[in-house]
Amino acid sequence: MEFYFGGTEVNVAISIANFGGKVKHVSSISDDFIGDTAKSYLRKFGVSTSSIVRSKRPLGVYFLEVGAVMRPSSISYNRSHSAFSEIQPEMVNWQKSLKKCTWFHWTGITPALCQGGYLTLKEGLKLAQKKGIEVSVDPTYRSGLWKYGAQPKETLSDLLQYCTIFIGGINEMNEILGTDFKYSNEDFIEASQQIIEKFPSIKKTFDKIRTLINASWHKIRSRMWNGSEFRETEDLDITHIVDRIGTGDAFAAGLIYGLQNFDDYKAMEFGAAASALKHTYEGDVNFSNVDEVMNILKGNTSGRFNR
Amino acid sequence: MEFYFGGTEVNVAISIANFGGKVKHVSSISDDFIGDTAKSYLRKFGVSTSSIVRSKRPLGVYFLEVGAVMRPSSISYNRSHSAFSEIQPEMVNWQKSLKKCTWFHWTGITPALCQGGYLTLKEGLKLAQKKGIEVSVDPTYRSGLWKYGAQPKETLSDLLQYCTIFIGGINEMNEILGTDFKYSNEDFIEASQQIIEKFPSIKKTFDKIRTLINASWHKIRSRMWNGSEFRETEDLDITHIVDRIGTGDAFAAGLIYGLQNFDDYKAMEFGAAASALKHTYEGDVNFSNVDEVMNILKGNTSGRFNR
Amino acid sequence: MEFYFGGTEVNVAISIANFGGKVKHVSSISDDFIGDTAKSYLRKFGVSTSSIVRSKRPLGVYFLEVGAVMRPSSISYNRSHSAFSEIQPEMVNWQKSLKKCTWFHWTGITPALCQGGYLTLKEGLKLAQKKGIEVSVDPTYRSGLWKYGAQPKETLSDLLQYCTIFIGGINEMNEILGTDFKYSNEDFIEASQQIIEKFPSIKKTFDKIRTLINASWHKIRSRMWNGSEFRETEDLDITHIVDRIGTGDAFAAGLIYGLQNFDDYKAMEFGAAASALKHTYEGDVNFSNVDEVMNILKGNTSGRFNR
Amino acid sequence: MEFYFGGTEVNVAISIANFGGKVKHVSSISDDFIGDTAKSYLRKFGVSTSSIVRSKRPLGVYFLEVGAVMRPSSISYNRSHSAFSEIQPEMVNWQKSLKKCTWFHWTGITPALCQGGYLTLKEGLKLAQKKGIEVSVDPTYRSGLWKYGAQPKETLSDLLQYCTIFIGGINEMNEILGTDFKYSNEDFIEASQQIIEKFPSIKKTFDKIRTLINASWHKIRSRMWNGSEFRETEDLDITHIVDRIGTGDAFAAGLIYGLQNFDDYKAMEFGAAASALKHTYEGDVNFSNVDEVMNILKGNTSGRFNR
Amino acid sequence: MEFYFGGTEVNVAISIANFGGKVKHVSSISDDFIGDTAKSYLRKFGVSTSSIVRSKRPLGVYFLEVGAVMRPSSISYNRSHSAFSEIQPEMVNWQKSLKKCTWFHWTGITPALCQGGYLTLKEGLKLAQKKGIEVSVDPTYRSGLWKYGAQPKETLSDLLQYCTIFIGGINEMNEILGTDFKYSNEDFIEASQQIIEKFPSIKKTFDKIRTLINASWHKIRSRMWNGSEFRETEDLDITHIVDRIGTGDAFAAGLIYGLQNFDDYKAMEFGAAASALKHTYEGDVNFSNVDEVMNILKGNTSGRFNR
Amino acid sequence: MEFYFGGTEVNVAISIANFGGKVKHVSSISDDFIGDTAKSYLRKFGVSTSSIVRSKRPLGVYFLEVGAVMRPSSISYNRSHSAFSEIQPEMVNWQKSLKKCTWFHWTGITPALCQGGYLTLKEGLKLAQKKGIEVSVDPTYRSGLWKYGAQPKETLSDLLQYCTIFIGGINEMNEILGTDFKYSNEDFIEASQQIIEKFPSIKKTFDKIRTLINASWHKIRSRMWNGSEFRETEDLDITHIVDRIGTGDAFAAGLIYGLQNFDDYKAMEFGAAASALKHTYEGDVNFSNVDEVMNILKGNTSGRFNR
Repeated sequence: MEFYFGGTEVNVAISIANFGGKVKHVSSISDDFIGDTAKSYLRKFGVSTSSIVRSKRPLGVYFLEVGAVMRPSSISYNRSHSAFSEIQPEMVNWQKSLKKCTWFHWTGITPALCQGGYLTLKEGLKLAQKKGIEVSVDPTYRSGLWKYGAQPKETLSDLLQYCTIFIGGINEMNEILGTDFKYSNEDFIEASQQIIEKFPSIKKTFDKIRTLINASWHKIRSRMWNGSEFRETEDLDITHIVDRIGTGDAFAAGLIYGLQNFDDYKAMEFGAAASALKHTYEGDVNFSNVDEVMNILKGNTSGRFNR
Repeated sequence: MEFYFGGTEVNVAISIANFGGKVKHVSSISDDFIGDTAKSYLRKFGVSTSSIVRSKRPLGVYFLEVGAVMRPSSISYNRSHSAFSEIQPEMVNWQKSLKKCTWFHWTGITPALCQGGYLTLKEGLKLAQKKGIEVSVDPTYRSGLWKYGAQPKETLSDLLQYCTIFIGGINEMNEILGTDFKYSNEDFIEASQQIIEKFPSIKKTFDKIRTLINASWHKIRSRMWNGSEFRETEDLDITHIVDRIGTGDAFAAGLIYGLQNFDDYKAMEFGAAASALKHTYEGDVNFSNVDEVMNILKGNTSGRFNR
Repeated sequence: MEFYFGGTEVNVAISIANFGGKVKHVSSISDDFIGDTAKSYLRKFGVSTSSIVRSKRPLGVYFLEVGAVMRPSSISYNRSHSAFSEIQPEMVNWQKSLKKCTWFHWTGITPALCQGGYLTLKEGLKLAQKKGIEVSVDPTYRSGLWKYGAQPKETLSDLLQYCTIFIGGINEMNEILGTDFKYSNEDFIEASQQIIEKFPSIKKTFDKIRTLINASWHKIRSRMWNGSEFRETEDLDITHIVDRIGTGDAFAAGLIYGLQNFDDYKAMEFGAAASALKHTYEGDVNFSNVDEVMNILKGNTSGRFNR
Repeated sequence: MEFYFGGTEVNVAISIANFGGKVKHVSSISDDFIGDTAKSYLRKFGVSTSSIVRSKRPLGVYFLEVGAVMRPSSISYNRSHSAFSEIQPEMVNWQKSLKKCTWFHWTGITPALCQGGYLTLKEGLKLAQKKGIEVSVDPTYRSGLWKYGAQPKETLSDLLQYCTIFIGGINEMNEILGTDFKYSNEDFIEASQQIIEKFPSIKKTFDKIRTLINASWHKIRSRMWNGSEFRETEDLDITHIVDRIGTGDAFAAGLIYGLQNFDDYKAMEFGAAASALKHTYEGDVNFSNVDEVMNILKGNTSGRFNR
Repeated sequence: MEFYFGGTEVNVAISIANFGGKVKHVSSISDDFIGDTAKSYLRKFGVSTSSIVRSKRPLGVYFLEVGAVMRPSSISYNRSHSAFSEIQPEMVNWQKSLKKCTWFHWTGITPALCQGGYLTLKEGLKLAQKKGIEVSVDPTYRSGLWKYGAQPKETLSDLLQYCTIFIGGINEMNEILGTDFKYSNEDFIEASQQIIEKFPSIKKTFDKIRTLINASWHKIRSRMWNGSEFRETEDLDITHIVDRIGTGDAFAAGLIYGLQNFDDYKAMEFGAAASALKHTYEGDVNFSNVDEVMNILKGNTSGRFNR
Repeated sequence: MEFYFGGTEVNVAISIANFGGKVKHVSSISDDFIGDTAKSYLRKFGVSTSSIVRSKRPLGVYFLEVGAVMRPSSISYNRSHSAFSEIQPEMVNWQKSLKKCTWFHWTGITPALCQGGYLTLKEGLKLAQKKGIEVSVDPTYRSGLWKYGAQPKETLSDLLQYCTIFIGGINEMNEILGTDFKYSNEDFIEASQQIIEKFPSIKKTFDKIRTLINASWHKIRSRMWNGSEFRETEDLDITHIVDRIGTGDAFAAGLIYGLQNFDDYKAMEFGAAASALKHTYEGDVNFSNVDEVMNILKGNTSGRFNR
């Protein structure tokens, strides 16, 4: 059995740190040696742990039985009474946490887990909006979560009013809008437009599209809508998938890094290439650096190394 | 080096136990800590070991150097004087072993190894027939075995007279009939008909057919003949093979489980899907349960898991 | 990181099964693949799982950072909302579970974890007493547990009224009696006598005593009081300790097996030797069989093997 | 982390030894336990170490972070002051080393590393030519080496005058001739002809051509020119690549073995099949023996093994 | 084979960071993925890497064949042309590196390796003295180093003039003073006095003394001289040594942490207990935290853990 | 599970090769990839495999469950029909095998396994005597072998008539002489004298004596009798035993190497030190070289290494 620390926001944070970005992770973890090790893990990748709070409850745990080809993985969660599940708004000092911050990223997992997570996040988002911080969201809607009583649609909508960048696909848009759009570019544009209209602070939507050739050969591309223009990148071939867990997080991280350093189109290309590269690593973390992603953008996809 | 317990009948037994069936394994193993560990191994999967006899001789051993792509595996056998090789009819209490038994499965490996194996098995088959137990056989003819003097054709024929279900391909039929049929459906029907006529207790024949796209991409389907009707399932794609050892045993186990719980056609589908799933596990055991096989039958073959 | 299933009652059950006893484990585990694997684990050692109930809650988890020499191990528990924590008396069919049962063993961990555990156990004990089943208890008092509101002294006393054999040291006796006895034989006798008088169904008390030469060299012996007679075994040397976790469970298992097969004194010797042998295995399970324990009793402690 | 001994000439030597050839490796290694282990490693495969000299400098080291699919491997070299880097002509007794020798193989790595390597090799080549020994060269030009001041073109040309067999592609020919030929057969023939004319001792050129279907599916074939005739083998499919490092060395080894045992065309086939098989092993060594290569030549490429 | 980052100053830095100290490591490492990994390794333990410079040369490497009992370990070094070996004073920005610094620790390994290391260190020490920073030195004299031409005695003396705390034994004192003192307390006092007189900035000397009971049972104590008073701690028993590499670094780290937080005597006790604990970890790093060291000081040396 | 090649004569051969001796192993192994790997294993240590014959039977196998402290290891043999068990005198070309041979060593395992082993060995011994080769024997009597009908006493006596050096203890002497001597030096001298008188070609007897302090602390010394003089070495302490398997073989190898290079007394010391060192390696092979053994003889037993 192998042992990993993970979580969708952690994956995004580590990937941006690997690109050279300065990243801070805000969360609540257990106040024992497992929590200490989790902090070491983040520090190892250069992610700041100075805003992490400690709890008497244990860190959430899950067991993953890794599948193969057409056999899906099995997952056994143990997180409903974890350290994070008892987070409360007063535990996080957002003023201090967001000092010098220029970008705030969150995902739909956080408000899905518990009321405290939702409210704590909302406090942070309010302050971020007040300070004019760019706020991106990856709503990743998973119906299997959301067990504490809140309605996904209302809760996510409440939080989306503080966001400026929407990263997510048709499923998430449909959940939030209560619509039934399909995967076509036309539907994506229409759904995006409705999102932008419903949440005026949101100015752009980004999506990652996966095409399956077979179980181990996929294609990845990216598309966006900014209220007036539709853009779409070329498909990238992943001819042999090592592990697809965390490839959405890798896209978000690449896109966020890209939007801070390049124009929108190159940011989309960078995000898609980062996501493609993630498919070649085991585990849910994208270990690639900027040079490695750029190398894919230049078309160096043979995997041959220069000696 | 890794260490496994294996054997074709053991694979079938474990797979059926994984499906929830009550299974008992009848064999002879060494009376030492290796034999104890072998019993633990069976027990772990829920296979009853109450009819296993113990011998002063060591458990048979083989070493497998695992191949890859077009490089075949190498195997080094050490079993000609093993615990099993000295089994004798009087060592097995068949009355007790077959109490409450409704299905008896055997393979052609058993009579191929030694005279005692052949005679012990024959005693069991006689009693099974007398008690009206369903008897399936997977004759798996391997010419490299059969070293103790018996003729495969005569010996297998002697045992087939007690069987009701024949699981095996053209090669086995040709060996038993002394014919030269090819792989076509027409030949399969004709050969099956001859088997049914020669061994009147046999009512149905089942076969698993593999089509190779390339070394790591195969297709699997199943066909049957019941004396009057030919049935054939759709091809299942295995786009990336992890390990193909034991996929015949997985088919037999799935088929036997299916025939006890479904109609013939669904049993064929279940067997083929079980065999397909086995290609995704390392080692020779099919670890999948009924839900996982059913999932394939429903067409969920993307390997994506639901969170 | 290595992965084990454990628990004090499981350790006792497996050890008795290793001695050839027929053992059934009664508990509640998660209804997922982790729970399935836990059942396989018990079955592998021959422990019956037919009275185990399944729960929607996850299996309790703990992480252990193994210490060395004077550096203690660290442990991080995650079990307050586990599958077991939600057990209720109506979930266990004690009539069926105790059919053909001649010995019932429980430990103080069970009533310490949750109200449901206490009440479920009490139902079983009542029936056991009614059926005249021998009931042994290892109260293993740990103050760090007992968080759900019950008082250890009252709760354990309530359950001790159904017991016939007390396995435990001065600490447990003091907790139950509210006394302050020391480790001397005189105090052990006096405390035991009080236990026997307070709980008339208890007829004998057994204790295991450890003497430390240094961190890796201990001595183990056993003592007992049966209301009229004090007995004590010779010290056994463990000159190099591999792992001392589970050595109390190994003593209990050896003693229980011994009391069913030998006289009291030999049972004490058998328990102490079993506990001594456990020190030579990594993990918390005593893998030794009857011959291996007997070998120690015969004084064969050089560790040399015969070829 | 895994630990290997490697190097292009070592790979060739081991592969020929695996084919049953008698091979001696001439080099300089460190005079410490790492050097001892390197000698053991060669001896294990049957490569003679009697002409290896020992140095006070450490063995060169490199770290390889293995890539996947389109993600290239990273390599970190530490060899500029290694044991080999201080080799000098007077350290090798070529008379003794080449006693009974009938074939001398070298690669372009040796003269690229250091002046001493170049001069030591030249002494050996001179003697080889004098003794009429067949001399093959695989110039493997890597611009990242060649840091000690020598010009690749001049240095390689100086050494090529002692060779009889040229194993290498268009890149190497262009580097040596100062030309700009492409990969077509026509260009190969023209470039080969120029090589043969410039270095009259060279009588034949051999090349291995790789065609990429995708990152994990390649095709390998071989071609040659002997001054008057062009030959080319059929493409061999490698449908799933395990590791492509060392496949050029495997080709050279197979070709050299083939030229000593078969005619030119079969030698080319043998080399290409050996190279194809190497793709199925992890690490840079081709572990296959003659039977296994011959099996591929016979078209047995399903990877199925005979029991 | 296992893979570690190490080095005497790194060990001290990590241990102090484990105690909660803020630590920065100043060095030169390779500018490749091995160097990146080394930085991650330091960051994981919370050691700042902001003053580490990068070099084109590879990181120094050594191979260690671990011994046992009376069999010594073997070590094979490869560092004479490493990244560090080419460090030059102008590469380190000491003003920035020592900003907010209150303690500077160095060891005798640094000036022993190369002229650049010596001169770079001297620049740092000069500035440290000017800024009134406490400077501790562990001269760890190893004659096998010092190959670049400098005289140990002169070089170390040149650097000692900037120090305030001397951590080292009789061997180091003798090397620096050119004397021949023995291990007795009397000699330690006399030698310490001479050190203090020769280097007036040094105010105290500390030493760790090891007594061997046998190869796996040692005792550790500490002694000091401050110009007027001799102090000595009690012996701590290490009854079973797991690994003694890095125990001197653990002492230095514990002592430095102690001197910053406690009085001199308790600092000595803390250092000795830290060193004792290090004997229980594999590898050269002391992973213990303040609570674990304090636990030893309180006499809790049974290794039993509280549940 | 780990996988080793072993056997008492192999251990002796490898150890002498590690000391720099030229050694050839004569045996019969399987003609499959397991046999090939066994040859590689010998070659790796520099043991010549040119006199090894190949058999259609598999290599003998055993499984070892490693014990600890007072818990003995369990062993499960599978060798009664192994490759070696079918060796016949005509299979070994002794003329060629003993060419340039100056020392012949055998153990009592060989004639114990099978008639063919006994007769093949006898042919070799006859030729060795004729050629004046020194012949040492380590009779290692194990009653559990000797199953093919031969009498140990008669068979060993028949072979001892060709020997010149007897390496073995009182047990072996008693078995051969039919006596009942004890372990005292007086009995050793008397028994040795009777051996020398009964087998006139034997001129010296050597014995290794083990004293147990506890299960992990032993002492080793050596004694000899040469017909007129008794010699005895000092005890060597092994304060912590890693693995004692193969320590008798290590003694024999050290003694044989010593007798070829030193006087008798130093050879005894060398053998005892080699045996002591073996206790520090896992597995049954003594990996130490001459320097390492000499280091122990010089009293360097602290296990500290020089940097």
